[in-house]
Amino acid sequence: MNKQTVRIGLIGAGRMGSFHAENLAYRVPGATLAAVADPLPGAAEKLASRLGVSKAYSDLQALLQDPEIDAVAIAAPARTHAEWVIAAANAGKHVFCEKPMAVTLEEADRAIAAARQAGVVLQVGFNRRFDSGFAAAIEAVKAGENGTTQLSRSVTRDPGLQDPAPIPQWTIFFETLIHDFDTLLHFNPGAKPVEVYALADALVRPDFKDRGLLDTAVVTLRFDNGAIAIAEANFQAVYGYDVRGEVFGSKGMLQAGHINANHCVRYTANGIAVDTSRLDSDLLREAYVAEMAEFARCIRSGETPRATGEDARNALAIALACIESVQRNQPVKLEAR
Amino acid sequence: MNKQTVRIGLIGAGRMGSFHAENLAYRVPGATLAAVADPLPGAAEKLASRLGVSKAYSDLQALLQDPEIDAVAIAAPARTHAEWVIAAANAGKHVFCEKPMAVTLEEADRAIAAARQAGVVLQVGFNRRFDSGFAAAIEAVKAGENGTTQLSRSVTRDPGLQDPAPIPQWTIFFETLIHDFDTLLHFNPGAKPVEVYALADALVRPDFKDRGLLDTAVVTLRFDNGAIAIAEANFQAVYGYDVRGEVFGSKGMLQAGHINANHCVRYTANGIAVDTSRLDSDLLREAYVAEMAEFARCIRSGETPRATGEDARNALAIALACIESVQRNQPVKLEAR
Amino acid sequence: MNKQTVRIGLIGAGRMGSFHAENLAYRVPGATLAAVADPLPGAAEKLASRLGVSKAYSDLQALLQDPEIDAVAIAAPARTHAEWVIAAANAGKHVFCEKPMAVTLEEADRAIAAARQAGVVLQVGFNRRFDSGFAAAIEAVKAGENGTTQLSRSVTRDPGLQDPAPIPQWTIFFETLIHDFDTLLHFNPGAKPVEVYALADALVRPDFKDRGLLDTAVVTLRFDNGAIAIAEANFQAVYGYDVRGEVFGSKGMLQAGHINANHCVRYTANGIAVDTSRLDSDLLREAYVAEMAEFARCIRSGETPRATGEDARNALAIALACIESVQRNQPVKLEAR
Amino acid sequence: MNKQTVRIGLIGAGRMGSFHAENLAYRVPGATLAAVADPLPGAAEKLASRLGVSKAYSDLQALLQDPEIDAVAIAAPARTHAEWVIAAANAGKHVFCEKPMAVTLEEADRAIAAARQAGVVLQVGFNRRFDSGFAAAIEAVKAGENGTTQLSRSVTRDPGLQDPAPIPQWTIFFETLIHDFDTLLHFNPGAKPVEVYALADALVRPDFKDRGLLDTAVVTLRFDNGAIAIAEANFQAVYGYDVRGEVFGSKGMLQAGHINANHCVRYTANGIAVDTSRLDSDLLREAYVAEMAEFARCIRSGETPRATGEDARNALAIALACIESVQRNQPVKLEAR
Repeated sequence: MNKQTVRIGLIGAGRMGSFHAENLAYRVPGATLAAVADPLPGAAEKLASRLGVSKAYSDLQALLQDPEIDAVAIAAPARTHAEWVIAAANAGKHVFCEKPMAVTLEEADRAIAAARQAGVVLQVGFNRRFDSGFAAAIEAVKAGENGTTQLSRSVTRDPGLQDPAPIPQWTIFFETLIHDFDTLLHFNPGAKPVEVYALADALVRPDFKDRGLLDTAVVTLRFDNGAIAIAEANFQAVYGYDVRGEVFGSKGMLQAGHINANHCVRYTANGIAVDTSRLDSDLLREAYVAEMAEFARCIRSGETPRATGEDARNALAIALACIESVQRNQPVKLEAR
Repeated sequence: MNKQTVRIGLIGAGRMGSFHAENLAYRVPGATLAAVADPLPGAAEKLASRLGVSKAYSDLQALLQDPEIDAVAIAAPARTHAEWVIAAANAGKHVFCEKPMAVTLEEADRAIAAARQAGVVLQVGFNRRFDSGFAAAIEAVKAGENGTTQLSRSVTRDPGLQDPAPIPQWTIFFETLIHDFDTLLHFNPGAKPVEVYALADALVRPDFKDRGLLDTAVVTLRFDNGAIAIAEANFQAVYGYDVRGEVFGSKGMLQAGHINANHCVRYTANGIAVDTSRLDSDLLREAYVAEMAEFARCIRSGETPRATGEDARNALAIALACIESVQRNQPVKLEAR
Repeated sequence: MNKQTVRIGLIGAGRMGSFHAENLAYRVPGATLAAVADPLPGAAEKLASRLGVSKAYSDLQALLQDPEIDAVAIAAPARTHAEWVIAAANAGKHVFCEKPMAVTLEEADRAIAAARQAGVVLQVGFNRRFDSGFAAAIEAVKAGENGTTQLSRSVTRDPGLQDPAPIPQWTIFFETLIHDFDTLLHFNPGAKPVEVYALADALVRPDFKDRGLLDTAVVTLRFDNGAIAIAEANFQAVYGYDVRGEVFGSKGMLQAGHINANHCVRYTANGIAVDTSRLDSDLLREAYVAEMAEFARCIRSGETPRATGEDARNALAIALACIESVQRNQPVKLEAR
Repeated sequence: MNKQTVRIGLIGAGRMGSFHAENLAYRVPGATLAAVADPLPGAAEKLASRLGVSKAYSDLQALLQDPEIDAVAIAAPARTHAEWVIAAANAGKHVFCEKPMAVTLEEADRAIAAARQAGVVLQVGFNRRFDSGFAAAIEAVKAGENGTTQLSRSVTRDPGLQDPAPIPQWTIFFETLIHDFDTLLHFNPGAKPVEVYALADALVRPDFKDRGLLDTAVVTLRFDNGAIAIAEANFQAVYGYDVRGEVFGSKGMLQAGHINANHCVRYTANGIAVDTSRLDSDLLREAYVAEMAEFARCIRSGETPRATGEDARNALAIALACIESVQRNQPVKLEAR
């Protein structure tokens, strides 16, 4: 195939890793899946074989040493992300990392520094920004078409909570709302968040509250230009995956996102009905492909990707303040960097 | 006309009073406008004459003594509402009062007690609950179709701030968000609000902040069943009047409200476009008529109206807590009644 | 009440007549219901009594002689419409006539001439043109915003066929599609229809085809400016009343009409759902009131109403050509007037 | 790459060919672009080089002899399609052919026979059936959810007519409405079309009418079960690409298709606005990929593709009857096969 094709090695062959792998194998212009690595015995081989990829590693470090790999896509467990970013950068590989890139600011700063020092591209998996609706809204805000942002809202509702046992505490902030924080920061470009107030509870599964699982949260965020933003998350929307954003400014309002699965509307004796999406990978299918295509493009061109390590750090700072706010039931100030 | 027609006297011939007067004169089955009262010289006469009503009073007490009046509709300045409710009830008149019915809890309690003692109907102008969309959503929640409420949202955005000079401080809570508080209480029936956190600022007209005018606010409300509700208001939506509600529960989500002015969609070289509404009296025209029709019906039948003095008191308690929260920048507990 | 109020006598106390009567009694600014006439013993009295109207006639001519009546609203059986228009005009009464105003062109011409000679207002019940969505579309077309009309479509689907036995033959053209023909003529102002091709069948109730009941029809209409229009009707839409229009021109497309009953959207485990309208009087409630308000206004001001006897004649000419087209299964030319 | 990957050779490197080539090169799971052929000097090389494909042919027959090619995708000029289908089948290659597969029934029959005899897969480019909305509607109809089809409609409006000079006569039927005929046949499965009436004119560019260019058409189609279908086409929708379908049956209505380009809604002082799509390849991007993925899947599995040579023949029969109907201005019967 094309010599300009970027050869990507995947780290982590779980649900999200497999999804990225399929996209890289079949759907991403300018990129190809060159290897799969996963410490779980047989996992890398199985995925590699299904997708016709010849290299499979159970030693993740071995993948980083492979000279035929240009870049890595990290879809390992969240708490290991930062260390893999640093290791990959040190090995001279470009890095695409699923969110959250880090769970402490210190880790985030080290990851950013490692990528900068190695001169590699570092992109973070804020896929929502590659959705055509969100991208159009953010572009319109940046272009000033919506005026000065005064109010904004970002919502994430997952379609269901099957077996929440292994979900680590604060997941709702680190893994779910981190998307919304990133969106809200881009709905108010140039402004800095100054204060956070967060509420979180176990409303879907009160019986799991003891284990620390919080499944519902609302965050209020105040910016230095006075704008107020709201983020909302819940782990069980029975109607399907629900991702929406709204930004209200002095010149109007923009809404992005949607819930319907397709463009078929059904009119029956029970009313009008539309199908909804069960999976984020259905709802945002094109965005997942677009983010990888941009990653490959940036590697070839040297451009800075749309979703950077700094973006990951900025969203993380809000998540950390939310956790403190929930613990103290008080608004929490965000330190100036 | 029909002997069963309820004869209503209007108190206050300003913008909102005139609007109610037109509806009563022409559009409300079971009610008729029998008199108009306004202390401003000539105002009552002018409106009465335009609508073909024979009685006009500049002495508001005189209207209350008129034996041919069955009921009054109060559209006087907000801070006088409670006193007029009490006076009307004492005069044996049924009372429809624009929101807010009172601005202190003590006043609200006295108004409720006066109506109860006089045995008159007391209805409050929470028109949104008579909008067919909001009414359907609230009914579905009550019927359990949406499951247990976990998250909810209510938005009010006024179309513009022309001359804000005479707007009294805290108007955004007392006169605007009071609607949203009422909606959110009905989106979570049976639950009690326990804590409020409010942010408010002058983002539309920062130059009026000194005079105390706050034009943008966001309120987070926690209920005793764990549900979290958000209310949002802004005084200048350039696209028109914007009133929407959303309630998310264990069995689904309901959305009510809309922004479009009619059912004409325009597809042009610039994209797809829909007209928006400039006035709340356009957006909620049918709701304004429906609330008065219900008032007349309750007077004849003895039923309790959908929007009661207690509802007004419950929404007011939240508004007062919001003001304290803004002043202290802290979450504020709501006293159990 | 207001001296300027137009006093209207109703002819025909059936379903449609009762609906107009309620509007006139309670909801139409500038008009009042002054009398009801119906030959069926007791029908006029019953409706009059329910609405608090003092005059009820079983002799319809008596109503026309009543000097306290300014105008009549005709909701008698369709085939008697033209004779009542002529009689009312001869008696000096302004006339609102439900559609179709006539079932032959000769009748239509006589009705128009009678009104002209008597100098009375003659308005026809093309309510759709008073719906805010259709009105906005027609206005945009007239203003040239949509460019030259090239294609257009008008749809009417009734919610159900309970007991079709008494439906006279060709009802689908005379009573249903007549609305669509009127709409299509206003979607292409200034152009003349030149040829018609119609298909009609009994698809809902094939068992009634012998009796001549046709419940489904499609009409293609060609105009002298080349534009092609389509009208569609069916008597049983299980999802509710369905009235929509679309006009496509050199500068864009306009769509009017809607199906949903309110602005409440329900998201459940089964998808997204919206309620639909079961009755035309629900779907077009405001349009029914608006047409009567315009009738009263035109009587007072001397203006020509939006929906005239000429409009009724133009739509009728198409209906008659459709019947011929169905009978011959051929396109049929429309005579130049 | 994957050994199961189907190796496809492209015939025709024009606009549509290039679009399919990009999809095959980058986006279609299970298929790869192995060669490009075009008689225009340099055209194949240029496209092949851009996409990193090593083989480029100016002799189209040479591609058919290439043993490393499993299948061909034909995007040559419409009037050569059938001959290429036959030649490819004779060479033992599976065939994907853009619509129309043929322009005479005799050609269509020969193409179908050639594929059958060679035992190769023959799929036709009715991409609309791979759009998730249309696919869901067709599936619901097949499953009986919509009851018996009574009325249906299919619309195609292209976004613009730049330089219509080379457009051959009857293109609107052979290349545009052929999609709509295929859709309408699938909206009424099991029924046979029995009669066609078509109107066509040059309304966008009347100045090109002399050259035979018809840019606007409306077709009425009657089925043997009484159902009536309408197809509509126009070559210049200034608001963008417009592809929609509607099927009304005894149990409800289904609508498929859409016009908006993304899920961003803009609310401004001028109303509510949504972007539209300028290209069919934008509007139906996923459908173009899905049809090729299905082609590859059918080759591997031996299944019959969703859009067959028979489908192409059935739609063509309607197009031919339309042309006769326009020429005679009469309804035209469709021969039973």
